Amino acid sequence: MGMVGGGKDAFIGAIHRIAAQMDGEIELVAGAFSSDPDKTLTCGQSLYLDEGRCYPSYQAMFIAEAQRPAGERMDMVAIVTPNHLHFPVAKLALEHGFHVISDKPATLNLTQALVLEKVINDTGLLYALTHTYNGYPMVKEAKKRIAKGLIGKVKKIVVEYPQGWLATKNDELSKQAAWRLDPEQSGISCCMADIGVHAANLAEYVSGGKITEICADLSINVDGRVLDDDGVVLLKFDSGARGVLMASQVSIGEENNLTIRLYGELASIQWSHHTPNDLIIRYPNRSTEIVRTGVGEMDALTLANIRTPAGHAEGYLEAFANIYLQFSKQIRARLDGEQC
Amino acid sequence: MGMVGGGKDAFIGAIHRIAAQMDGEIELVAGAFSSDPDKTLTCGQSLYLDEGRCYPSYQAMFIAEAQRPAGERMDMVAIVTPNHLHFPVAKLALEHGFHVISDKPATLNLTQALVLEKVINDTGLLYALTHTYNGYPMVKEAKKRIAKGLIGKVKKIVVEYPQGWLATKNDELSKQAAWRLDPEQSGISCCMADIGVHAANLAEYVSGGKITEICADLSINVDGRVLDDDGVVLLKFDSGARGVLMASQVSIGEENNLTIRLYGELASIQWSHHTPNDLIIRYPNRSTEIVRTGVGEMDALTLANIRTPAGHAEGYLEAFANIYLQFSKQIRARLDGEQC
Amino acid sequence: MGMVGGGKDAFIGAIHRIAAQMDGEIELVAGAFSSDPDKTLTCGQSLYLDEGRCYPSYQAMFIAEAQRPAGERMDMVAIVTPNHLHFPVAKLALEHGFHVISDKPATLNLTQALVLEKVINDTGLLYALTHTYNGYPMVKEAKKRIAKGLIGKVKKIVVEYPQGWLATKNDELSKQAAWRLDPEQSGISCCMADIGVHAANLAEYVSGGKITEICADLSINVDGRVLDDDGVVLLKFDSGARGVLMASQVSIGEENNLTIRLYGELASIQWSHHTPNDLIIRYPNRSTEIVRTGVGEMDALTLANIRTPAGHAEGYLEAFANIYLQFSKQIRARLDGEQC
Amino acid sequence: MGMVGGGKDAFIGAIHRIAAQMDGEIELVAGAFSSDPDKTLTCGQSLYLDEGRCYPSYQAMFIAEAQRPAGERMDMVAIVTPNHLHFPVAKLALEHGFHVISDKPATLNLTQALVLEKVINDTGLLYALTHTYNGYPMVKEAKKRIAKGLIGKVKKIVVEYPQGWLATKNDELSKQAAWRLDPEQSGISCCMADIGVHAANLAEYVSGGKITEICADLSINVDGRVLDDDGVVLLKFDSGARGVLMASQVSIGEENNLTIRLYGELASIQWSHHTPNDLIIRYPNRSTEIVRTGVGEMDALTLANIRTPAGHAEGYLEAFANIYLQFSKQIRARLDGEQC
Repeated sequence: MGMVGGGKDAFIGAIHRIAAQMDGEIELVAGAFSSDPDKTLTCGQSLYLDEGRCYPSYQAMFIAEAQRPAGERMDMVAIVTPNHLHFPVAKLALEHGFHVISDKPATLNLTQALVLEKVINDTGLLYALTHTYNGYPMVKEAKKRIAKGLIGKVKKIVVEYPQGWLATKNDELSKQAAWRLDPEQSGISCCMADIGVHAANLAEYVSGGKITEICADLSINVDGRVLDDDGVVLLKFDSGARGVLMASQVSIGEENNLTIRLYGELASIQWSHHTPNDLIIRYPNRSTEIVRTGVGEMDALTLANIRTPAGHAEGYLEAFANIYLQFSKQIRARLDGEQC
Repeated sequence: MGMVGGGKDAFIGAIHRIAAQMDGEIELVAGAFSSDPDKTLTCGQSLYLDEGRCYPSYQAMFIAEAQRPAGERMDMVAIVTPNHLHFPVAKLALEHGFHVISDKPATLNLTQALVLEKVINDTGLLYALTHTYNGYPMVKEAKKRIAKGLIGKVKKIVVEYPQGWLATKNDELSKQAAWRLDPEQSGISCCMADIGVHAANLAEYVSGGKITEICADLSINVDGRVLDDDGVVLLKFDSGARGVLMASQVSIGEENNLTIRLYGELASIQWSHHTPNDLIIRYPNRSTEIVRTGVGEMDALTLANIRTPAGHAEGYLEAFANIYLQFSKQIRARLDGEQC
Repeated sequence: MGMVGGGKDAFIGAIHRIAAQMDGEIELVAGAFSSDPDKTLTCGQSLYLDEGRCYPSYQAMFIAEAQRPAGERMDMVAIVTPNHLHFPVAKLALEHGFHVISDKPATLNLTQALVLEKVINDTGLLYALTHTYNGYPMVKEAKKRIAKGLIGKVKKIVVEYPQGWLATKNDELSKQAAWRLDPEQSGISCCMADIGVHAANLAEYVSGGKITEICADLSINVDGRVLDDDGVVLLKFDSGARGVLMASQVSIGEENNLTIRLYGELASIQWSHHTPNDLIIRYPNRSTEIVRTGVGEMDALTLANIRTPAGHAEGYLEAFANIYLQFSKQIRARLDGEQC
Repeated sequence: MGMVGGGKDAFIGAIHRIAAQMDGEIELVAGAFSSDPDKTLTCGQSLYLDEGRCYPSYQAMFIAEAQRPAGERMDMVAIVTPNHLHFPVAKLALEHGFHVISDKPATLNLTQALVLEKVINDTGLLYALTHTYNGYPMVKEAKKRIAKGLIGKVKKIVVEYPQGWLATKNDELSKQAAWRLDPEQSGISCCMADIGVHAANLAEYVSGGKITEICADLSINVDGRVLDDDGVVLLKFDSGARGVLMASQVSIGEENNLTIRLYGELASIQWSHHTPNDLIIRYPNRSTEIVRTGVGEMDALTLANIRTPAGHAEGYLEAFANIYLQFSKQIRARLDGEQC
């Protein structure tokens, strides 16, 4: 694997590296971690990379790696840059023959998205977006239970992702804050593009429905900002379900408290990022159930995303690693196929 | 105290009676518990009432009680009927000289409300609405902390009241469901009139602001109903705060899970009916605090609404009793004033 | 009902009064609230008692009330004094023909207990001890589920009652602390007599077994004390179950966190005073269940101890009131029998 | 790194591998995963190992690796076998010049422990025991806060580790159960040797004290067993603190619910494996605090054991990886020193 972005002060780069290597199926062999070649080299050295594969730019990396013999070049690229680079890097990587796993959002706008879709189809390569929360085993279990009809037809979905890390003017000083609040790098939205997409994706992933109509109230809560830092969205799904999505970066004191509740005709199901190994199932006139990761009968998909026996909590990094692991399995299947 | 409504199969009547007599300050002495005089008599007997004060109608009760000598007649009336009677009973009670404590909503519409306001002003009598949740000590503590500026200016309020007891067609069979779903008795709304008002009131009471603009999505989720059983409302407050109110009677498996979160500029505060003795206060870059009823410094208003030492949880009935107790104290103050 | 002890600065007196009158079945009509007749009179006036029934001593009360005509005298006595008076007051009340409901412990030692047993048997009167926690509906539900075999044979019981209110020298200044730490008033034990007995009683009540062997480590954790303020006890029950009982008044920061866990051959059951409306049932290889007060099928005994619909939490005062209510029903049954 | 034990059906082997490679500082290069050379080879292949370094026995591995040139041989050995092999493998590894990281318990008895101590001292090599729970950031934060005196002198420690996976006869069928219940492989204890040691170690690690006296009640709760499956131990510490340790493999329905509470003179502190990112601090007459991983001021040791920003829960594998990471840093320091 090669990596674009993710130098030493970008928190998400280190996360991607841990997630990629946790299961011993993916090895980081190349990188263009920074627009500054010196920083890339320093970073690469600290990661025990071959210096010759610490590239001055992502363009250089794609060209050089594509020229290496099969079996000795990287198979895939991880994109962990600010938003505005997701699309051009992914496009170029695909065009050079590399599978792509990218941080969200995939693109800055619909036009780019359509181009990207065409490139993926044309190249036939694999493309994954790291909607991390879908990697949690109990999120998958929730999805499967709903798909099997265990809570009946879903009538209402409440999904929320409150954070407080941009609540005040002072919070804008970090590098993380700076690019997210800058339309040049972040695009047309800060809060919705950064975490609203996680909430929307989670609602669609778990419920199996698609959002078809919205009524949104986005707001800016700190003077001087030009992008949203909070929003509430009324939702309608193709399944007929109604919903509400709340995302906020100014809900002071909250830490990534992503929570989803789905109310069906027979029961309801709740998952929260703060207690990610619990699935709460509520029934009319019956005890509430707490389904715990690995305890009792689980769907095969869930089991494939658990590494430890029941009672040994897995967390965010394992959820992230699940996405890399499943992606690596698909690449492996292709590689094995090619060898035939 | 006299009571209108609240016969043996009306759950809220018994609640009001317990709440009224818990502190030994109010004695039930008269009643018109049912439109059926026999039922009223049976009910009154089981409550050890004087049979002569078990009245065949509320009109009869007001007339008869008003004719008794001062000190031997009831001082106040509790109204615990279905919604459509709240207004006419309250009006008549006030006109006969009785203080009124009424279940919510006060009236079916604005016109009635304005009339009621005039009657209250004209008679100079006391009128209370049992917004029970305001009676919880930690709700009062939250209100006071916000008023003192401890979380800074409130920016966002999320209040929700999910229930599941009307989730299906089968749930419509109870007497409680029947009148609430009937526009003749319930008025123009089921869910919002029944529990949405609690949520709205709680948001205003705790935050100290008034709701000035709304954008609502009310819905009917079971075939054959004519009144809303679920709704989401975007809110704006006169203070500039934004908010969301969710109320639902079809959130299957939920039991009165009223929760409010208020996000300020300095901290946020959360109270939930499921853990009513906890106030959760979240700060940026600091530990979360759990303020427990009676532990540590509390506002005088809070302390006046606690009966037991810390660690002995008070619940719904005590919250309800707090409303009666404060009301009785006001009446007592007037009685004591009259005696001078 | 008459009351002995429970003047204005004794917290438990007010609790007993609320518990007694909550359901409208018991009326406080007489009292000897203090050894100081003036205080008794002031207290009685504030409770709207007839001044003639505010007695200078409990002895005087028993004599005077016994001379009143049947139907006009008190039927029962509530004893809410410090420990050393429980026995003599109860004995005298019974000897004058009054049913007794007493705070725990019943007596200071075994000799007194055997005398008390004889007086109860000789008079044929009713005697109740306010082991309050048994009054919680979910404690009764736990007891019944275990009796029905739903968790199989109980193998292990862990019960603990940590408090922190006597953790330091400074905590000894209150009147509550003073008598509990004084062997003259408290007897041979502070912590075990005050709260260890609650834990032991709860373990026996819920499990249905009797403690037959103990190995105890009682300790004194603040200089100058002569009675225990903390203890751990290894238990064996007649059923063959093993157990541990922990009680503490120096577990700083804890508020009456009484918790019991019973592990059976098929499942385990947990109840905690901090979340008294939850019963947590854990199974091997199955979801954990949270049984909530009033939700789903409940034993008839449980239902008889609930006043509100599911979702309206009842707390400590209602648990206490349940003990009074059941006691009043037994007296009522006798009164009704006598009238025949 | 080389590994002894940890073939495909041993759960802990995979855990150790993930923990070792998560941070990219340790590479698995050799293994003797099974007493069956074929199994070792298959396992090694699935892990992308050089076949020549998949050894038929641990003895063969130590000899062969020791003969490889410096910089091309493994630096350390991870021991993940059943208990009875921990000591002989560790001793031999040290004697061949390899640092050792071993699963607990270190040895089967005190005699072995003294021998092992001597070998470590004689060789000057590093030896680590994977007391995993010490790897959690909030456990380290608890230790540091106590060391700084923030809760005052510790008076009482309650530590418990309940599991239910050996509650019944049927639970004995797994390979994991078989060796733990067999004195030949497990030693003189099942429950205490397997999980009691974790609880004891945690109590000592966090409190900073040493256990000096015990009074234990170990028991066997399933017919036919010869080793303990449950135990309660009264503790005294050299600091003067008292304590209780409970460990159980027959607490049906419990999943590794390791919890520690330490009560000091100023405050108490609680950590539970089920919510490993929370530290609960209780004070007298003040709000309870929930310290969350990475939120607010943390000790440097804590920060060195966190990989993700606040709000992204780390779990068991990260705690385990922390132990490997710190161990690798010590080896790295030695390697860097040697290169000078």
